[in-house]
Order: sequence, then C-alpha cells, then structure tokens
Amino acid sequence: MKTSVSSIEGQPTANPLVVEVTRGGMVESRHRAAVAVVDAGGTVVASWGDIERPVYGRSAIKPLQALPLVESGAADAFGLGPAEIALACASHSGEPRHVEAVTAWLPRIGCSVADLECGSHLPYHTASAEALIRAGTAPTAAYNNCSGKHAGFLTTARHLGEPTQGYIRYEHSVQQRILGLLEQMAGLDLGDAPRGIDGCGIPVIGIPLGNTAMAMARLADPDRLPPARAAAARRILAAMAAEPFMVAGTGRFCTAVMEVTGAAVALKTGAEGVYAAALPTLGLGVALKVDDGAGRAAEVAMGCVLRHLKLLSADQERALAEQLAPPVRNRVGLETGRIRPSAGCPICSG
Amino acid sequence: MKTSVSSIEGQPTANPLVVEVTRGGMVESRHRAAVAVVDAGGTVVASWGDIERPVYGRSAIKPLQALPLVESGAADAFGLGPAEIALACASHSGEPRHVEAVTAWLPRIGCSVADLECGSHLPYHTASAEALIRAGTAPTAAYNNCSGKHAGFLTTARHLGEPTQGYIRYEHSVQQRILGLLEQMAGLDLGDAPRGIDGCGIPVIGIPLGNTAMAMARLADPDRLPPARAAAARRILAAMAAEPFMVAGTGRFCTAVMEVTGAAVALKTGAEGVYAAALPTLGLGVALKVDDGAGRAAEVAMGCVLRHLKLLSADQERALAEQLAPPVRNRVGLETGRIRPSAGCPICSG
Repeated sequence: MKTSVSSIEGQPTANPLVVEVTRGGMVESRHRAAVAVVDAGGTVVASWGDIERPVYGRSAIKPLQALPLVESGAADAFGLGPAEIALACASHSGEPRHVEAVTAWLPRIGCSVADLECGSHLPYHTASAEALIRAGTAPTAAYNNCSGKHAGFLTTARHLGEPTQGYIRYEHSVQQRILGLLEQMAGLDLGDAPRGIDGCGIPVIGIPLGNTAMAMARLADPDRLPPARAAAARRILAAMAAEPFMVAGTGRFCTAVMEVTGAAVALKTGAEGVYAAALPTLGLGVALKVDDGAGRAAEVAMGCVLRHLKLLSADQERALAEQLAPPVRNRVGLETGRIRPSAGCPICSG
Repeated sequence: MKTSVSSIEGQPTANPLVVEVTRGGMVESRHRAAVAVVDAGGTVVASWGDIERPVYGRSAIKPLQALPLVESGAADAFGLGPAEIALACASHSGEPRHVEAVTAWLPRIGCSVADLECGSHLPYHTASAEALIRAGTAPTAAYNNCSGKHAGFLTTARHLGEPTQGYIRYEHSVQQRILGLLEQMAGLDLGDAPRGIDGCGIPVIGIPLGNTAMAMARLADPDRLPPARAAAARRILAAMAAEPFMVAGTGRFCTAVMEVTGAAVALKTGAEGVYAAALPTLGLGVALKVDDGAGRAAEVAMGCVLRHLKLLSADQERALAEQLAPPVRNRVGLETGRIRPSAGCPICSG
C-alpha cells in the first residue's frame, strides 16, 4: 500500500498524552491534557502542556463560586450547614439525599424550586433516574446536578436584598460579584476574557489553567486573603471534606477520592474534561483540562496528579484502584480493557 | 505568574486537529483524528495523520462482517430481505422496528433471543428506553445495538451446520471465517494482529486504518473479488441504502446521511470514535479514528471527508446542517456552542 501522510501546518502544539484506554492487546484511545499545579503566590510548582490557554472552569470552580454565599454572611443568616455548603459546590447525582436537601433549603430562603433557573435533566444516578421514569414524573430543576449551586446563588441574592429573577445573567449582581471574585482569586482582569453560557445557564469565563490553579491554591492556603474571604474558603473546604457525598454521589470520582483522603484533597469535576483541586496540606491548587473534553480521562489524570504530589498512601491507592485506573467492561460485565495513565505519562514519570 | 512548561519526549506524533467544540467566544475542546481514503487496489487517495497504526474497527466494519451471511447462501436459504441484511450491519437504536425485526428473524432460523450472546443494554433511543423502564421490563439481548449482527452470525452458523453456542469466540468457525475474510479484504496477515473483545463479546482485531479503508473500498468496488463475494458486497450496500433506518435509527448520523445521499454513501459508525464508509460511485473506502474515542467528533470528521470528496450537493449540505456541525445546547435548550470542523481542518482545506 502506497501512503502519503499529510503534514500538520498551522495547528497548535499538542498537549502531552496522559491517559490511554486499552482493549485486549492494544491501546485503543488516547487523551491529551494540560495540567497546572500552582501555589497561592502564583508560582507554578509543576505543569504539563499549555497552561496559558484560556479554559472554561465549568463546574470545577464551583468551590470558588460558592465563596460569596459564605463570605456575605448569607450562609449564617439562613443557618446553612456543611451539607448545604457542600451542595453549593456540587455537581450532584440527583440522588434522593441531594434532591431532598435542595428542596428543603429553598423554602428557608423564601424561594421554591420554581425560582431555580438551571433547567432540569434526569439524575446522573441510574437508579434514581429510573425511579423517576417508572413513576412517570418529570425531573424538576432540583434534580439538575447544579441545583445546589443555584440555591446558593438565590440565597446570596436574598440575603443582600437583590432580585432573584435573572440571577443567572452575566449582568446580574450575583454573577458580577463572582466575576470580581474570580479576578481577585485568579489574579487577572477578566473584563475582556472569552465567555459563554454553561449547561445550567450561568456565564462561563475563559481563564488560563495556571490562573485557575492559583485561585484553587488561594482556597487551600487562604492566609493572605481578606479575613472574611479566608474564613469562607476554610469553611467551604471543611464542608466538602465533611460531606463528600453531597459534592457528587454514589460511585463518583470526587466522592470516592474525598472519602478516602479526607481534608487533604478538595476535588471538583467539571464538564468537558476539566478538574480542579484545592490541597490544604500542601497549600497548592490544581487545574487540568483534557483537550477533547473526556471526563473519563480527567479523572485518571487527576489521579496521576495526586500520586505525583504523594498525596495517596499505598493503602489509599489500593482503596482507589478502580477509580485510578477504571476497568472497561462489555455488555456481559467482562473486563475488556482499562482507562489508565499512558505509557510514559509525564505526570507519573515526572 | 512564572511558568515552566514540560516538554513532551518519547510520545507519538500527534494526529491533526480536525474537530473543535465551541462555547460562546472560544473553542472549548479539540479532537484529533487519522483518516484514510483508499481505493480497492490499495492506493491511498487521501490521508491525514497516522494511518499505519492498528485500530480496532469495532462496529464500523459490520458491513464486512456481514459478508459471510450473504456469500455463504445463508441469507437466501432463510429468505432474508434488505431489512435483515441492513440489521446485520447495524448498531441500531433499539427502537420497536429494530427489536421486532430481530425477534421475528430468530425463530426463522430455529433460534431464539436466548441464543444471542451479545448481552443486553437499554436502547440508545431515549423514548424506547424509557418505555421499557416504565413497563418494568429488562431489555433482552434483542435490544442490544448489535443484535442484528449476532442474528446474522447465528444464521450463517445454522446454514453451515455449525454449533451456535459459543459463536462469539475467536476460535469458533463463524469468527475464524470473518478473520480470513478480513485478511483478504484488508490485504494483511492478521494471525499476529493485536486483538481484544468487543462490547458485544466478539473478537476485535487491530488493523491499520489504511487497510480498513481498502477493505471498505473493496465493498464499494467489488469487481476484482471472487464472484460470490462481489455479489454479497453489492447486496449488502444495496440493503444499507434501502434500509438506512435499520442501520442506526431516529436522529442518528448514519441514518440521516444515508437517507439524504442514497446509494452513494454506505456509512457505519463504531465505538471509540471509529467511522467507515464505502463509496460505490467513487470506488473508494474511508476509515477514520478519533484519537480520543469521541463519537461526536467522528461524525463531524466523516462529514468533512464526504465534503472533501464532493459527495454532498449544496442542498444535501443544507439538509444535513445539524449533523455536519451539531449545536451544543444547555439544559433549557439554548444553543451554547457548536461541534464543527476545526479552524484549519486539513480535511476541509485539503
């Protein structure tokens, strides 16, 4: 066979391969990613790939978006506990505990599910989704994986006497407050940053991965933040550590890892292959983006970072074996491959 | 911020970026792929990326795997029509027409759904899946997207007097016959090729993309094949053209494109970002693999190839606009981005 492979001109340099998916005797698929590990002062402790390119943090930055809820005094005014604060940081699976907690929270601020502007979708948790379908009940907005974040937005607006309607809009004070907070935490002017609309309707802002990691580091090591913000950061990480189930759900990577690592790792996934972490014991933040948007690779890549930073003991690695290199199974349950760090993964070997 | 980007040593050269996913003012995710367009004699007419690396054809090569069903005389012996032959090439959505046709086919060969060894899963088609859940009925193996292929395997085994049990095993004559056929069509000795197990339990064989494209070209331009195989190739492509719904289902890329292009394009998707096409009017075969395994990118990349080969008229492009560059929508249905050929996509610009 005669071949002529075209060259690749005018295309951006490729980020490194960090995750591979095997099947039988071969690697079947490959995922590239950029990763930034940064401290609260902005020093890049480690990085792989292009960490200057703007990335939408999506749901991975929910712990940052939850800061005003606590910092404003809204959480205390309405008596929110760790479960609600964890839900404000969550992409939850729509299991009964998640939905019931959000549904019980809204009346306490004089709102109802009808005030949530996130839209609805079936729960990520299969059994919960099937229970709804069997009952012939359409999911309300409380089932949206972002309903806790939205309840947090409504709570802040209520506390500060702002209108609740339209709280998802870029121009609304709830979103403008978060924009200002992201500028301070990420150390950037975001007035001209690329922006778009998230799956749940709120603005997304393009921020270089290194700056997102710095913002997460400032959550993890908040000593140089203004006192109210520092206190809010500590309380948010404590809530995530206390309620890892509320942050995600049954069988989810965020929940599984935080259940094992406790307060050493606050972990948050986002759509399109984004993952972020705040690491209080090291005073570091992590942000990563899988080029192609695959969540399966973002999880394994985050596992590589946690190992690289020696945050997992041998026992913890064993307990998380199915999360760090998940099996691929076929329709009869047979293991046909693995999602795992790539051969020569620069994070693992670095 | 001080950064130090690690270099990428010892990693394979990246395939070209061909598909990007936008959100608002920015590209959010990027997909790389290798693509081969080859004729029946093995001349590479066009290629992008590494087409020498072995790739599992997965379900994209079902039209090749269906050849023995027709070539052996089994299809005629059991009176199969275009609907059944198209189903033998299908990754169907488990809609009632698909499931009913497979369920009616099996007794004609003295088998039942219990003889299918593919395992089961809920239909890809949401309304069909929800109907099953509401009824409290677990999906049988007839609902598996591969059930038509498996019914074809059973039909061939029955016709040739082979045992039906274990027909999915590498050593079974049904699979060995396909292995020999793939060697002839792809022009390769596959005895030492990498192999694994597919989602439905049958063997997958690693074949370079260029050779898979040549095998598809030999379906499209079968004149130099032995007469019985050539006749089978023509009948399989005619069945796919006549029954595009049976090959996939409502809203699916394969079905939508074949409904518009008719007999000019026989199209077949596979898991992990594989796509193949046989193009009778051009006498060409196409095989592509998205590096990361994303089906959303494989579809758009196949659209790029069809445009590159001038197989779509302006009217057809308009009719397929939502398939060629699908919108990304959020939870309330708002369009937040697009999946589209990348800026500088080498297929589109080549």
